[in-house]
Amino acid sequence: MTAPVEPGARLEAWAPAGMGEVRPGDDLGALIGTLLEDVIADGDVVVVTSKIVSKAEGRVVAADDREQAITEQTVRVVATREHPGGVLRIVENPQGLVMAAAGVDASNTAPGTVLLLPVDPDESARRLRAALTGRLRVRVAVVITDTAGRAWRDGVVDLAIGAAGLRVAEDLRGTPDSHGQMLSATVVAVADEIAAATDLVRGKAAGRPVAVVRGLARHVTDDDGPGARALQRHGESDLFRQGADEAWRAGYDAGVAAAGEREPGS
Amino acid sequence: MTAPVEPGARLEAWAPAGMGEVRPGDDLGALIGTLLEDVIADGDVVVVTSKIVSKAEGRVVAADDREQAITEQTVRVVATREHPGGVLRIVENPQGLVMAAAGVDASNTAPGTVLLLPVDPDESARRLRAALTGRLRVRVAVVITDTAGRAWRDGVVDLAIGAAGLRVAEDLRGTPDSHGQMLSATVVAVADEIAAATDLVRGKAAGRPVAVVRGLARHVTDDDGPGARALQRHGESDLFRQGADEAWRAGYDAGVAAAGEREPGS
Repeated sequence: MTAPVEPGARLEAWAPAGMGEVRPGDDLGALIGTLLEDVIADGDVVVVTSKIVSKAEGRVVAADDREQAITEQTVRVVATREHPGGVLRIVENPQGLVMAAAGVDASNTAPGTVLLLPVDPDESARRLRAALTGRLRVRVAVVITDTAGRAWRDGVVDLAIGAAGLRVAEDLRGTPDSHGQMLSATVVAVADEIAAATDLVRGKAAGRPVAVVRGLARHVTDDDGPGARALQRHGESDLFRQGADEAWRAGYDAGVAAAGEREPGS
Repeated sequence: MTAPVEPGARLEAWAPAGMGEVRPGDDLGALIGTLLEDVIADGDVVVVTSKIVSKAEGRVVAADDREQAITEQTVRVVATREHPGGVLRIVENPQGLVMAAAGVDASNTAPGTVLLLPVDPDESARRLRAALTGRLRVRVAVVITDTAGRAWRDGVVDLAIGAAGLRVAEDLRGTPDSHGQMLSATVVAVADEIAAATDLVRGKAAGRPVAVVRGLARHVTDDDGPGARALQRHGESDLFRQGADEAWRAGYDAGVAAAGEREPGS
């Protein structure tokens, strides 16, 4: 049995200690370049939490304005749920991501502040990649991660919200499987799997916001590539573009209205 | 800045070559034990595709009966979408998983056959863990994976459908972040992140259905634990328990009916 698609076969992921607190205006390329200069190798993937990107980009808002910030970061409400402390809003944000609270984040932030996501995480990844490539003289990919909930599953996982220099999706459609049959409908979200892998070594509270993944050079590209936005599903092809309760309610109202139109005398 | 939650800091994942084709009735514990006997270490996580578990358990059905098999594996239709080849059915299956085609799988199977998922993947994981522990004399965790689509995101990722000996979710609620504030609403789906990480080394078609993850011993438990079923979200707490179009249609019908009841003369 031959292996028509060669897997990475082995990867290592680790999160170096020593990254200090990131502050607005900091040069993230310089900070991460210094952190990694003795360990980076050609073909590595450098994975960075959106949190430190947001901090460096000054995406800080007073915590008292959190609900207002979520409203401002809402392009479209997908679903809501009441809980004892208020209303959880799952929305699509300007970055095109469907996230609870629009991705506005109150953990690991300075007291009294919350963080917005980077304005354009793919652009942030491209800038960071250019800075690291210039400084470290190696070809690396950059992934920017955030933590998100999911439909049908409990618990959060990290996913890729920005990427540069990475084949974010591996399209196996039309390649033969081990029995020589064609694989169908198999596009692997490589960038999301990388993000998830690094969350296992990074920890949520441990001051290790940068991770390196080695062994995936086959996914590292010369050009910046499409970015993580290519992994977003929008419009009609997203069968879960609205919560079940919200969709039901919209349908109910439409049904009542349609019945009224059919019976003009009522 | 201290690290109140110590992360794994480093992990390795690899997929050994040499696992032959698995056939109905094969002793999976013996096959995987032989594959790993020279490389396994205490605290490793052994990650196995559901495909070979299904094959060993004889969950093979003639491909001509695929649509019927999907129907039989459907507990609840979540969403459907027409496509040129027919209708894609996203359903909840008897294992409690929401999956396209109920998880019935036609890739990497013998021609003319499709595979059903293991009847009880957590039980399969427990049996495999017991066999590996007895054979290899080390404490390991076992994760059984499958590939699944997601709401809002393009591309598939691997997730955990069975687990034994693993802390499948890491509950960080109430632990302090790097600023001494409490982390809220953060339960990490560790088992799913492990599954995703190993997909990067396993490949979909390369005859490497077993992977080992080293560096996560802090998640390996003495007892079998709750299994991957603990990561499933069901009922009212699943805001996406029905596709938007299906929910809208149900609401519409209810609205028409309600309007009719309010106007008995119409």
